[in-house]
Amino acid sequence: MPTINVLLPGDASADRSYEIRIGSGVVGEIGAAIARRSGSRAVVISDAAVSAHAAAVTASLTGAGIDTTAVAVPSGEASKSLAVAGRLWAALAAQAVDRQTHVIAVGGGVVGDLAGFIAATFARGLPVWQVPTTLVAQVDSAIGGKTGINLEAGKNLVGCFWQPCGVFADIGTLATLPDREFTSGLAEVVKYGMILDAEFFAWLEGHAAALVARDPQALVYAVERSAALKAHVVSADEREQTGLRAVLNYGHTFAHAFETAAGYGTLLHGEAVSIGMVCAARLAEQLGRIGSDIVARQDALLAACQLPRSIPSLTASTDDLLAIMARDKKSIGGRLRFILPDRIGHVELVADIDPGLVATVITQQVAGPG
Amino acid sequence: MPTINVLLPGDASADRSYEIRIGSGVVGEIGAAIARRSGSRAVVISDAAVSAHAAAVTASLTGAGIDTTAVAVPSGEASKSLAVAGRLWAALAAQAVDRQTHVIAVGGGVVGDLAGFIAATFARGLPVWQVPTTLVAQVDSAIGGKTGINLEAGKNLVGCFWQPCGVFADIGTLATLPDREFTSGLAEVVKYGMILDAEFFAWLEGHAAALVARDPQALVYAVERSAALKAHVVSADEREQTGLRAVLNYGHTFAHAFETAAGYGTLLHGEAVSIGMVCAARLAEQLGRIGSDIVARQDALLAACQLPRSIPSLTASTDDLLAIMARDKKSIGGRLRFILPDRIGHVELVADIDPGLVATVITQQVAGPG
Repeated sequence: MPTINVLLPGDASADRSYEIRIGSGVVGEIGAAIARRSGSRAVVISDAAVSAHAAAVTASLTGAGIDTTAVAVPSGEASKSLAVAGRLWAALAAQAVDRQTHVIAVGGGVVGDLAGFIAATFARGLPVWQVPTTLVAQVDSAIGGKTGINLEAGKNLVGCFWQPCGVFADIGTLATLPDREFTSGLAEVVKYGMILDAEFFAWLEGHAAALVARDPQALVYAVERSAALKAHVVSADEREQTGLRAVLNYGHTFAHAFETAAGYGTLLHGEAVSIGMVCAARLAEQLGRIGSDIVARQDALLAACQLPRSIPSLTASTDDLLAIMARDKKSIGGRLRFILPDRIGHVELVADIDPGLVATVITQQVAGPG
Repeated sequence: MPTINVLLPGDASADRSYEIRIGSGVVGEIGAAIARRSGSRAVVISDAAVSAHAAAVTASLTGAGIDTTAVAVPSGEASKSLAVAGRLWAALAAQAVDRQTHVIAVGGGVVGDLAGFIAATFARGLPVWQVPTTLVAQVDSAIGGKTGINLEAGKNLVGCFWQPCGVFADIGTLATLPDREFTSGLAEVVKYGMILDAEFFAWLEGHAAALVARDPQALVYAVERSAALKAHVVSADEREQTGLRAVLNYGHTFAHAFETAAGYGTLLHGEAVSIGMVCAARLAEQLGRIGSDIVARQDALLAACQLPRSIPSLTASTDDLLAIMARDKKSIGGRLRFILPDRIGHVELVADIDPGLVATVITQQVAGPG
């Protein structure tokens, strides 16, 4: 099975590096992994829609002699709320969970972010393991230690950096994903090619059909390569301080604004990222940073992955969208900054962009081809 | 002015060590300190009861050219709640606070813990500065990076470790503290002598009257010595992993149970700690770890500091108190562990203590002398 090492600088007390295991059936390894860390109690927090996977995790844990309880939250972005977090904290308190209790997040990005935040904050920190069951979680959200919940004012405004002890990306869980959810994960995969790896981008151009058909061999490679690229970035800039980690936000400032304006859950995250990358590439073209050929190659790959490249309609005005972007936590002093490509496989942080240009690009994608 | 350095291991990105400034008027230095870190925006979070100190902080910040807004929360432990945290997160979002915005906590332990938690979790982490205005906050809660809020099930069940950029302990703020609140802070001061420093304990025996009279010179020394002892422990065991930091919990497992059972706010934290230390010393005596002479010296010093040594009455049963202690986040697998003295200036972690003995000690202090 492919294994990626996420190297993190140790503090005085411990090396925090961890492994990402990728392959069919890796979910069965989790009990032994936690037992090796002397874990004897666990709480599985899962999305109600993945009860079969949660049961497999629980079976692995109990099989390893670990005292395990399970809590499920409703499916969907609405669970990344203060209200649901409050219920989970109370549930852990009611079970007298202590700092030796391991939390296992089983589900997509919503559960990973939510359970990670609960683990980061209950009793000032419990060990957490990620078992991502969606493509977007396997290639992106389960890796890197970002946890959080949403406020009415915006996504992920409350959260912590809290690194997992390990990630188990079981390709088998992808077989039963709804089409739209599976496809949306491909947006983040395309993103890695655009921002960091022209060779991987070219591989994706040749294997988009196999990925859409969920060919297991293609999936293992796409997840492995994506996870390795993300792990590399996270290792080098764990807390978004050197600027390197910001490259991962390619397309995301636009995407968050689209998601916020459309109402959480209307657009899937990967769908918003796909449209956001189209906007970012067009913005880069407008600024003379790339030619139309690169915009076209990205458009074609997103289309081959069956991803949307425009929004049919949006009730928010472009001014509203610009205001949301100015509140983005990666903004500085309310000024717009974007990650923009200068070629396939390389991006840069560009500051002080004319809001009028951003508005133009957005307008084209709201009314544009798709 | 005395300055204590809190040395913390750096991670890859930054040295996280910080200074504690102690003395009359140090609050006026905060604007310059934040400006030196290139801070240009700040949010002052304060207790409504210390509006004069919050105004002094705001004046220092605006005087240094820092764009400053202020939020006040109601006085009292009830503000360490999810509801108040939710309002503060929303307030920061409404102000479009970004990661370059500094949070300044002005107040006692409640505001320090609450504002620290908000800073730790908004946008996955804002820089925070502590301006403790009570004795207990100056010698204890503002130092060491523990932040958190309470759940109905117990105190501080939700929180993070989040180190401040600096601490400004202005002795001038202690002059106007209500007697009971001032006195309760002396419990933590006595604690440092008991757990780590027999010489300091002896100094306290000689200066209890001066401290109770709030003699500024005595106060500066008591705060400086306490802060230095706490800083030493925190530097060596930032996240309570080696066991060293656990010594700070001397008296606290009892204290938290008393506070929870009495209802937050009925007993001041320091009052509960004073009674908790009496219980812990008696437990140590019962176990043959110390003689009655040490119990008597601690009793006498607590009395000289005008601190309570027993509870007049308590509606909770000893079984309820034991159940609360078993849920304490320092417990392991629900088994009782206590920090107990073996002489003045030294304590040890003692596990697997007979709950019957603990119940006996509690019963004596509920019905006992005081």
